[in-house]
Formats: sequence, C-alpha cells, structure tokens
Amino acid sequence: MDRIPILKLNRFLLVTIQVDMHDRLALALQDDLTARIVKDRARGVLIDISSLEVVDSFMGRMIAHIAGMARVLDAETVVVGMRPAVAITLVELGMTLEGVRTALNVDSGMALLAATLTEGEQFSGGSKG
Amino acid sequence: MDRIPILKLNRFLLVTIQVDMHDRLALALQDDLTARIVKDRARGVLIDISSLEVVDSFMGRMIAHIAGMARVLDAETVVVGMRPAVAITLVELGMTLEGVRTALNVDSGMALLAATLTEGEQFSGGSKG
Repeated sequence: MDRIPILKLNRFLLVTIQVDMHDRLALALQDDLTARIVKDRARGVLIDISSLEVVDSFMGRMIAHIAGMARVLDAETVVVGMRPAVAITLVELGMTLEGVRTALNVDSGMALLAATLTEGEQFSGGSKG
Repeated sequence: MDRIPILKLNRFLLVTIQVDMHDRLALALQDDLTARIVKDRARGVLIDISSLEVVDSFMGRMIAHIAGMARVLDAETVVVGMRPAVAITLVELGMTLEGVRTALNVDSGMALLAATLTEGEQFSGGSKG
C-alpha cells in the first residue's frame, strides 16, 4: 500500500492510520489530504490513531504538520482514538500536539468539529448583523 | 499490526481495509466485528475497500462471510469505495457478493443504511398498529 485512504464523512474527512509511517507515506498523505480539503471543501479532519500502539516523535510532528496545513485551509484537525499508553508517551516525549484537538472516538470528534463550526457560523453571522 | 480498527459512526460501524488480508487477520476481524456489533448495538457495517487495488476470491469470501454474520446479528453490510478495476475482477471471478450491498462512498453508504433502517422501523411500526 502506498496511500492512506481519506474518507469523506459529511463535511469532514477521516483518515485512519493503521500502518507505521515512513517519510514517503507521510508526504503522500499530506499531499492527498490538502488536495482533498480543497476539493471536498472539508471543514474538518479527523485522524484516527486507535490502532497505533506507539506514536514516536516523527508521527507526532507529522500530525502537527497536517493540523497546521489544514488550519490555513480553514479546516480544524481532531485526533481521535488515542490509547492511554500513547498519551503517556507523548507527554513523556514533551510533545503537546499544539493546535491539535483530541477526542475519545470518531463520534465525539465529529460532535466537537460540528460544535466548532456552529460557533464559527454564529460568530460570522453576528458580525454581519 | 494484528488488528483492523473498527470505528463507530453513529449507529454504524466502519472498517477501512488498507492491508492485504491473511487468514489470521480475517478471523480476528470477524471476531472483533461481531463482538462490536453486539456491544455497540450497531445496525449497519460499512466496509471501505477504496485502498484495495486487488480483491481476490479470499477477500470476496471474507466480505460475504462478514455480511452473513452481521445479518444474523440484525445489521446490514454495505461495501463502499470499490474501484472500477475491482468491480471488473469480481465479476470475472464470478463473485456476485450475494447479500452485500454496495455504495460509491462512505456518505452514500451511510445514507443507504439509514434509509434501510427507516423503512424497517416504519414496517415494524405498521405491523403493531
């Protein structure tokens, strides 16, 4: 497999990371994801890492990069399904995943993104009126 | 990786197959999925095969098995994201995936499942009155 599939769920995109990332795969994912955000006019990106038992600093940086790129394309990123052991490792590595929000599972992540969108729409609606 | 993650989306479960299946992985997926259907009271299963370039007879049988198991647990199965080349191969192999419905993508698959559920609920509501 040379590509990680990106699934469209309503206004959001879902990426399920099941395999160890290497440089080329990570670059391909960044390219594909940014292209899809623009093409599908996605407002949010869900990254599911529930099958990862280990998240190293490379993976942590990749997630932070993706979130940064998504943000400048006006899409929020939520990481879902993080295992407790992974959370412990990330903190021990000193990786705080700045700018990335987390949720327990895909359902909660979608609810979080939907809530963020509604807030934003209310805000932009209010500033017009 | 020794497990394929199963994601809960509302009343449905989503499985994204990204790697080649072998016997043990397929058995583990069947076990996990049936357990999750019961635990989460899921009414539908979406199997995304958009990253598969090849679907052989083993994979075809596995999908048909999963659909059969899900059905006796009162959950419908929809295969989504099939590539055109895969569709051609399946027909050439003589695999019609009986009892399995297909949809273009996850969004359409969820709409299909939701429509099936609504029909079923109307029917059971009608038989009571």
